[in-house]
Amino acid sequence: MIRAGIIGASGYSGMELTRLLAGHPQVSVGFVTSDRWGGQAVGAQLPLTGKVGALKYVSNGDGVSAAKDVDVVFLATPAETSHELAPKLLALGVRVVDLSGAFRLKDVAQYPKWYAYEHRHAELVAAASYGLPELFRAGLAQAKLVANPGCYATAAALSVAPLLKAKLVDPASVVISAASGVSGAGRKATEDFSFMEVDSDLRAYRVLKHQHTPEIDQTVSTYAAQAVRVVFTPHLLPMKRGILSTAVCRLSPGVTAEQVQAAFTQAYGAEPLIRLASSADAVRIASVVNTPLTQLGASCDDRTVVAAAALDNLLKGAASQAVQNVNLLFGRPETEGLV
Amino acid sequence: MIRAGIIGASGYSGMELTRLLAGHPQVSVGFVTSDRWGGQAVGAQLPLTGKVGALKYVSNGDGVSAAKDVDVVFLATPAETSHELAPKLLALGVRVVDLSGAFRLKDVAQYPKWYAYEHRHAELVAAASYGLPELFRAGLAQAKLVANPGCYATAAALSVAPLLKAKLVDPASVVISAASGVSGAGRKATEDFSFMEVDSDLRAYRVLKHQHTPEIDQTVSTYAAQAVRVVFTPHLLPMKRGILSTAVCRLSPGVTAEQVQAAFTQAYGAEPLIRLASSADAVRIASVVNTPLTQLGASCDDRTVVAAAALDNLLKGAASQAVQNVNLLFGRPETEGLV
Amino acid sequence: MIRAGIIGASGYSGMELTRLLAGHPQVSVGFVTSDRWGGQAVGAQLPLTGKVGALKYVSNGDGVSAAKDVDVVFLATPAETSHELAPKLLALGVRVVDLSGAFRLKDVAQYPKWYAYEHRHAELVAAASYGLPELFRAGLAQAKLVANPGCYATAAALSVAPLLKAKLVDPASVVISAASGVSGAGRKATEDFSFMEVDSDLRAYRVLKHQHTPEIDQTVSTYAAQAVRVVFTPHLLPMKRGILSTAVCRLSPGVTAEQVQAAFTQAYGAEPLIRLASSADAVRIASVVNTPLTQLGASCDDRTVVAAAALDNLLKGAASQAVQNVNLLFGRPETEGLV
Amino acid sequence: MIRAGIIGASGYSGMELTRLLAGHPQVSVGFVTSDRWGGQAVGAQLPLTGKVGALKYVSNGDGVSAAKDVDVVFLATPAETSHELAPKLLALGVRVVDLSGAFRLKDVAQYPKWYAYEHRHAELVAAASYGLPELFRAGLAQAKLVANPGCYATAAALSVAPLLKAKLVDPASVVISAASGVSGAGRKATEDFSFMEVDSDLRAYRVLKHQHTPEIDQTVSTYAAQAVRVVFTPHLLPMKRGILSTAVCRLSPGVTAEQVQAAFTQAYGAEPLIRLASSADAVRIASVVNTPLTQLGASCDDRTVVAAAALDNLLKGAASQAVQNVNLLFGRPETEGLV
Repeated sequence: MIRAGIIGASGYSGMELTRLLAGHPQVSVGFVTSDRWGGQAVGAQLPLTGKVGALKYVSNGDGVSAAKDVDVVFLATPAETSHELAPKLLALGVRVVDLSGAFRLKDVAQYPKWYAYEHRHAELVAAASYGLPELFRAGLAQAKLVANPGCYATAAALSVAPLLKAKLVDPASVVISAASGVSGAGRKATEDFSFMEVDSDLRAYRVLKHQHTPEIDQTVSTYAAQAVRVVFTPHLLPMKRGILSTAVCRLSPGVTAEQVQAAFTQAYGAEPLIRLASSADAVRIASVVNTPLTQLGASCDDRTVVAAAALDNLLKGAASQAVQNVNLLFGRPETEGLV
Repeated sequence: MIRAGIIGASGYSGMELTRLLAGHPQVSVGFVTSDRWGGQAVGAQLPLTGKVGALKYVSNGDGVSAAKDVDVVFLATPAETSHELAPKLLALGVRVVDLSGAFRLKDVAQYPKWYAYEHRHAELVAAASYGLPELFRAGLAQAKLVANPGCYATAAALSVAPLLKAKLVDPASVVISAASGVSGAGRKATEDFSFMEVDSDLRAYRVLKHQHTPEIDQTVSTYAAQAVRVVFTPHLLPMKRGILSTAVCRLSPGVTAEQVQAAFTQAYGAEPLIRLASSADAVRIASVVNTPLTQLGASCDDRTVVAAAALDNLLKGAASQAVQNVNLLFGRPETEGLV
Repeated sequence: MIRAGIIGASGYSGMELTRLLAGHPQVSVGFVTSDRWGGQAVGAQLPLTGKVGALKYVSNGDGVSAAKDVDVVFLATPAETSHELAPKLLALGVRVVDLSGAFRLKDVAQYPKWYAYEHRHAELVAAASYGLPELFRAGLAQAKLVANPGCYATAAALSVAPLLKAKLVDPASVVISAASGVSGAGRKATEDFSFMEVDSDLRAYRVLKHQHTPEIDQTVSTYAAQAVRVVFTPHLLPMKRGILSTAVCRLSPGVTAEQVQAAFTQAYGAEPLIRLASSADAVRIASVVNTPLTQLGASCDDRTVVAAAALDNLLKGAASQAVQNVNLLFGRPETEGLV
Repeated sequence: MIRAGIIGASGYSGMELTRLLAGHPQVSVGFVTSDRWGGQAVGAQLPLTGKVGALKYVSNGDGVSAAKDVDVVFLATPAETSHELAPKLLALGVRVVDLSGAFRLKDVAQYPKWYAYEHRHAELVAAASYGLPELFRAGLAQAKLVANPGCYATAAALSVAPLLKAKLVDPASVVISAASGVSGAGRKATEDFSFMEVDSDLRAYRVLKHQHTPEIDQTVSTYAAQAVRVVFTPHLLPMKRGILSTAVCRLSPGVTAEQVQAAFTQAYGAEPLIRLASSADAVRIASVVNTPLTQLGASCDDRTVVAAAALDNLLKGAASQAVQNVNLLFGRPETEGLV
């Protein structure tokens, strides 16, 4: 059994992760932390979680102490908190799957701009594995620290990476529009995320400033082995969960729709958690919400491809991807506990 | 008093138009047609509509007969119906404001591709005025036939036209993502638009095939006096009404954010029905729903501008724009009956 | 012109009231207060409000000072604030329409239980007129202080008052279930009213403890001249605005459905802001939202009547009812500015 | 392994049932029928359904033929269809769990009134077991035909049955208001259930005429061994799934809140799929949606108890309750495949 702990288990991603690990046949949850729910039983918040339901949430601080008795700790904490905690946990010899952005950007000089803090652990960033198995499965088995990808970054990167790698599209042309359910913002008690402000509305936010932008650039540039700088525009949707991303790229001269479909089939045809749709129109959040799946589809005309991706921001965009990663870390079948 | 008739008054746009005309101090509604509600009083469907509430819906056929007694007829009908009816009405000497796409595309050869029918009235298309006053106010006063713009086309064109005209952006780079509330699809009793299929979902549709695409191209090309071909991707939102459009354009070399703001201020600073926001982030559907307003805002980085537009698809995207147009046709203040 | 001021204009009811008064042909708004938006122009929050849009929000304190120059002040404030401010305003000789519960309950001993404070102005309560014109129009013309009814209380009382007055139902049997959109809770930045907590959910709240319960009892007891004590259960709906109330009453022996319909027709047949539906099934929030109307309908079987009411909690449940009241106070047509 | 077939697997309940049975460790699904999706693989509609995903939907007719090779057939069909099919299936020696109302009402004379057809199988009705295990577990093990309860009936009956059995409330006083997500209406392509008609609305329907009313009466009368006739008012909610029921009952003289709580604890304290909340306010749809649980809670004042129940109409109100029943039929642990 893999012994695991979760720090930050009362956030929306932390709750989903707790639920998934509670049902994982090869994971034994040693502790879960929540400053918010400290002392309460997990089962009071998450029904039907079996043995995990009987655990009590402990404080984040007690979680770090308890970490010495587990094999892996999941950090479902804000980036700055993860940045503090990961070194301590790794020093205990525990492996870490961090769901925040704290260790995703290889160029630590980017942190002040996109995350508003100075990064003090460049060596950990260098050693961290980016946990997007469908693009970078190799190496995850040996990782000590996994940077679990961002929700938007997962959707966007999966939708354009095969096109870029196969050189079917102009890398300077990638324009991604995406929209997320409200849970993507985390648990918030602010008027901005009140029902009155969100329902029956749509708005773009952090336009040209969203921190997943450099993550997308890094991911697809690495995967496709060419410099890519995307334009990324996120929107806030009046629904609880789910992301739809539609990427528009200029086709390279002469590229056909068949080549586009072939690139997706080649990249993902054997992936157990990816569903290829016949066109961009066929991709929708409702197909994947509450599942660990990503749905992908593309449509072309004579000069343009629109590649759409849908996933559940709390699952493939966070918790279920973390489970894929922990399975890989410990040599388990990648989809164990997920399907 | 302007004597007006409405054909197709039980569609969502037709209902809004009836409501607006009922409150217009200089319009006298002579007839309203609805095959669906024939014989019912308007007031049974639309409360608080005063004298208009006492009118009874008549059949579309009876509407054409009744048209000889009015000055203007609004066609809130599908494009093929408008294509049939407009010539008959114009032959009676009645002016026509058509809310469909039947007379919007100057190149009638495009109709089979985008509207799935052959256009038989090229001379009317040639004579029609495109009723987007903020871009093409001149000429509307003399028009016999007004092609009232599409909802997406209004939002998208308003957001990029000033940038293109001022040559601030690369005309080959315009990528528009937009999303609309369900009323944009019209009154539908199909499973696709059932609550179960739409709620908590987002999907793109008619990807690279939406009929507003050539309309946007034509509008901004004409306004900016240069050939523009945009990429346009519409999405279906889980809300009743409203459109948000976010257009991404490559800035021309050296263009600054100040120049971008100046272009919007110059184009729209004096427009009574346009609200300029400080950035793309500040633009949202909730600001304009149930109003005749369009909200516009732009954000820039070193190479890209994102220009957002929000409007109510049934008002500025249909009915209130039709009222602007009828005011111009008959020499009334453009916002009469709207503010 | 009636010179009016609004204290508490940034709450949802206060915003609607500002909008309505801005469009009222016989009201001149002298000041609007908001501690939240102090210094901003009204038009920045409420577009298309004409001259009122140019006013700037002042602090609540400055509102009281400015009150000496107006004829009437609307208090769109919490009950405890209204309880403080109304005496000061009345002392200036200004008439007051209070949208809170501060002066609704004639038995001031009830305030600690239902409103959690001691009432210190029993004489004002005694003098206040309960502003539900459809039930108590007489006397409003002379009122100095109007207690504008609660949103639920308006819906519930209108739906059962005629049945009780006509002695068609057992006064001990009245069970009312109602549900409100989120705006009924006021502007809240708490997690309880976040989108994540409210969307796709329904819950009852303040069960057997809601402060509108004694208000309903008082209203229908007074109107029907018999002691009535209802059971009232409110629920929170995942929508922005609107109330539906369904009241279940035991029919008195031998009472027929025709008598029930006749009671409603007699009570409300001539009311300009009430719409009688053919059955309880025909009553829905969508029929009345964004209007000053109340829709009422009843269905019977051999022993029971279910009487449904729908209204917009921010309009007939607050702001438009306040406009009805101010019209009556100043001898204007009751629906002026509303239809 | 229990060999099972599902007839009517493309309805919302049938889909949930398919999903649940696909994950049930002791059920082997032999066939699934859908006239709508005939020939398609289950996995194309329901991802992650393992071996069941490879099955192809067959026609309803072929389902009846295939039934001879299974132990139990689930009918997720309209009542009239179940009324036709159940006798044929039982004649094959197959056990039947019917999710419709076809065999729920013991008094077959009620069918024309509530279900609009004449019942021709009184003997099957007499033999059928009403499959609400928390109230009538005994006897289910031997049943050949299980009438799986209605969604509203499950919620309402569970909330008042213990109070009536313990004689804590007046059986003549029970007034139940309930509200359901749209999936309760089944898969509909009618304008009534379009997004435009349902979103941001609430309405009561089938007032005093809903077919679950006699089912609730029968259930609680049987369980409490006294004649009960409730008033039941259902409402349509703007959400996909979930039911909240709030029952109001007059307390018998002298009954205390403690007695009320004790009655619930005694009835359900050991039930694995019931969660007792501390009050009616604490019961909400969000607590139970997507789970097989029912949440129950009650609040009292001096004369009244309000008992609230929440459940997922497609699970405890249909599919998961059917799984409880099939587990009991075949001697499996009742919650197998569910928790």
